[in-house]
Amino acid sequence: MQHRLRRRAALEAAKGAGADSLVVTHLPDVRWLSGFTGSSGAVALGRNGAALFTDGRYTTQAKAEAAGLKVIIGKGSPGVQAATWLTEYKTKRCAFDAANTTVAGLEAMRKALPAGQRRSFFAATQGLVARLREVKDADETARMRRAAKLGCKLFEGVLTNLSAGETENEIALVMELEARRAGAEAMSFETIVASGKRSALPHGRASAAKLPHRGFVTLDFGVILDGYCSDMTRTVHMGKATAREWDVYHSVLEAQQAGVAAVVPGARCGDVDEGARSVLRKAKLERWFTHSTGHGVGLEIHEGPRIAAKQEQVLEPGMVVTIEPGVYLPGEFGVRIEDMVLVTERGHEVLTKASPKVWIEL
Amino acid sequence: MQHRLRRRAALEAAKGAGADSLVVTHLPDVRWLSGFTGSSGAVALGRNGAALFTDGRYTTQAKAEAAGLKVIIGKGSPGVQAATWLTEYKTKRCAFDAANTTVAGLEAMRKALPAGQRRSFFAATQGLVARLREVKDADETARMRRAAKLGCKLFEGVLTNLSAGETENEIALVMELEARRAGAEAMSFETIVASGKRSALPHGRASAAKLPHRGFVTLDFGVILDGYCSDMTRTVHMGKATAREWDVYHSVLEAQQAGVAAVVPGARCGDVDEGARSVLRKAKLERWFTHSTGHGVGLEIHEGPRIAAKQEQVLEPGMVVTIEPGVYLPGEFGVRIEDMVLVTERGHEVLTKASPKVWIEL
Repeated sequence: MQHRLRRRAALEAAKGAGADSLVVTHLPDVRWLSGFTGSSGAVALGRNGAALFTDGRYTTQAKAEAAGLKVIIGKGSPGVQAATWLTEYKTKRCAFDAANTTVAGLEAMRKALPAGQRRSFFAATQGLVARLREVKDADETARMRRAAKLGCKLFEGVLTNLSAGETENEIALVMELEARRAGAEAMSFETIVASGKRSALPHGRASAAKLPHRGFVTLDFGVILDGYCSDMTRTVHMGKATAREWDVYHSVLEAQQAGVAAVVPGARCGDVDEGARSVLRKAKLERWFTHSTGHGVGLEIHEGPRIAAKQEQVLEPGMVVTIEPGVYLPGEFGVRIEDMVLVTERGHEVLTKASPKVWIEL
Repeated sequence: MQHRLRRRAALEAAKGAGADSLVVTHLPDVRWLSGFTGSSGAVALGRNGAALFTDGRYTTQAKAEAAGLKVIIGKGSPGVQAATWLTEYKTKRCAFDAANTTVAGLEAMRKALPAGQRRSFFAATQGLVARLREVKDADETARMRRAAKLGCKLFEGVLTNLSAGETENEIALVMELEARRAGAEAMSFETIVASGKRSALPHGRASAAKLPHRGFVTLDFGVILDGYCSDMTRTVHMGKATAREWDVYHSVLEAQQAGVAAVVPGARCGDVDEGARSVLRKAKLERWFTHSTGHGVGLEIHEGPRIAAKQEQVLEPGMVVTIEPGVYLPGEFGVRIEDMVLVTERGHEVLTKASPKVWIEL
């Protein structure tokens, strides 16, 4: 049902770009438009309706997952199959996603067309479907809530494993094992466990380093559940903290809360970024906040909108974004705190609210 | 040292394709040419020598990993940086990999060029570096030997976990946990544990299904160690087998051994495939062997050469290929056996020889 609505919106977007049809080969887009989760597939939308193209390995699966959609089983590139099918129905101009189609892939689709159509058939567009995917529907928000909840459960569980001498790698492994046992398909990115001085690395993937007796541990992780990604960060402190550590933590927390508070429908993404950033500016920590405040999340871990300085895009109900300011003092320590936040009709809902952001000293 | 030789070979290949330079953005290719393992980078090779382009996150890492190569830190797309740098040195025609460059990526590189060069600067090629990577040097074969050995160790270890009632997912998790504890960066693909009737699925990713009291279990898995992938499959039997099961297993084993025996320098890949396939034909099982015999493996899990029917490519010393025939009887059971095989000067070396292929009944 919702897939049919999504396909209609995608075809409208293609028409807005001057095309009468659309070929989709990027797998998260294919899944979003059809429900199909296989590793090879394409969707065509045109005058003659819609169809999903895949190969013989997926006959049963495609028909089950993409119920209500015509499924065509063929050989070779699904994109080529899809484009060829469209030309059989007087399609004149077909939009494709230039950001997710290789030069060779486009050439293969073009070569398969009738000679007279090769030159003018394809219209390069960027992110037509990706932009639609930014706004989640009820089914998607329900899945994302469950993914976020599982993330919170993992954080709660791992707290008992955080002890001096344990390696970052082992912590990450325990979290991944628990995630998979709870039904996650995979982690949504390489788990970050950055302890002691390593917490000053914004992307400190878990290493062989051992947790210190005293110092921060930053945990940034996510699961993929039912296709949808979660993403959250918590920073805890091992042992007694210095006043400086306590102050920086609370500045980041205040910035993060200001960022979350700014997430309302109609807000400019640049203003949400500024909401978090201005707190760190006042605390004279802005120069150590070296990345943007957040990003959209959904079937992919990084989607639109970008929550970054000067972004003019406006938040809409149904968008899910991360709010994740951080402060990184090279050679000393770092703190990052991140939630997933759903934009609602009247404000927002923090999807990762089950995990405390208050100071945790272990 | 070997990186310099690799870069020289790549530039020669570009010249053979009518270009005087080469821009490389596919990350496994970038790593192979430079040693750099970061998540964003490009290599340019031209009249003015070679350079690696990345961003400020990787300044220290790039200089350490790509020792002996000029490292240029910039902003934005590394491919755009690389192409622009080449035009500054009278480059006339630059090869790029059409199979790994998006339409939008090419357009961005083109737009950054001086107006007079935009039309004729880029020459589309496919797999120039990928073909060079098919032949591994001594450093690479040493790493692949270690990766294969770790794979064998995991198989040996997991045998004790194979008992009726245990889930496929749990078996896969235990293997992955052990792999990571032994230093693997990740698995090289989603671990396949296909038990009972599910063993008839060629790509039966581990599921919630429980191991049966009687029936086959197919384990197909690999690790990434020091950047290089391993890949192997073993099929074992739980409980007492039927004569039919025993016969099919030994037909597949005989086919696999015939395939391995055909791996010698100078052999046509199609003939290696036929070496395995003909055994199954004689056993009247060929129609249930529904895929090709194998593929190259290295920094990526699927590389050239393809070991498939009619492939004219000839094996060369240093290539590493899988030999993995299988028989899949829908609704009944399946068997697949796979080794990684290095082509040597005089014959071959089975890299996964530490794991027994003889009949194992648990």
